[in-house]
Amino acid sequence: MKKNTLLLLIAHGSRKAQANEEVRQLAQQLENLRREKVIACFLEHGAPSISEGIDLAIQESPESILALPYFLTAGRHVQEDLQSILEEKARAHPGTPIRLAPYLGSHPQLATLLAQIAEENL
Amino acid sequence: MKKNTLLLLIAHGSRKAQANEEVRQLAQQLENLRREKVIACFLEHGAPSISEGIDLAIQESPESILALPYFLTAGRHVQEDLQSILEEKARAHPGTPIRLAPYLGSHPQLATLLAQIAEENL
Repeated sequence: MKKNTLLLLIAHGSRKAQANEEVRQLAQQLENLRREKVIACFLEHGAPSISEGIDLAIQESPESILALPYFLTAGRHVQEDLQSILEEKARAHPGTPIRLAPYLGSHPQLATLLAQIAEENL
Repeated sequence: MKKNTLLLLIAHGSRKAQANEEVRQLAQQLENLRREKVIACFLEHGAPSISEGIDLAIQESPESILALPYFLTAGRHVQEDLQSILEEKARAHPGTPIRLAPYLGSHPQLATLLAQIAEENL
């Protein structure tokens, strides 16, 4: 495992403050699991923005940044917006590699998790 | 395990057909895992709608219907819209219990799955 990777949990963001707070709590849980810094950031309707989140990440002087898109489907946001924001920030910070993980909804374990939720609620 | 529960995978829906197709493929994977019928339906921008999805489900004569909200955060959609649509359909079909599972984003395993995605992309 590479050390000192900072994780950026990127969510769409909601006008409901409570929904954004859920994402921040999830980031905290992920930080506890990974024992590495995790910063939650938002495409819209939440702070920090993705750009601000990367600036905050850079201030932590990580060896690299791994962006985890907290999105379920490959809409315009995942396919275009995230990619272009991350590329722009990577050019601004050439010393810190910024990588983009596949979005949550594309992971094969998701069907298994839904099956588990079904089982727990029968 | 109760037999003959039909699962309804409820997604927000997208104007991008491909994003809705992803949800339908996930419903198929879930059906393969559960060996029970799964119907994907959409709150907006996709067919069938939730109401139409429940009508399709009723035609299969299940003992009960379990709705799985494929949503990440408790925005207005999960808190109000789904609840009211399901209650209305339950009144229209009193012979078939319709239950609403917690939305995907509220499941404690989600942080573990994100940690796994991070690990796979380090």
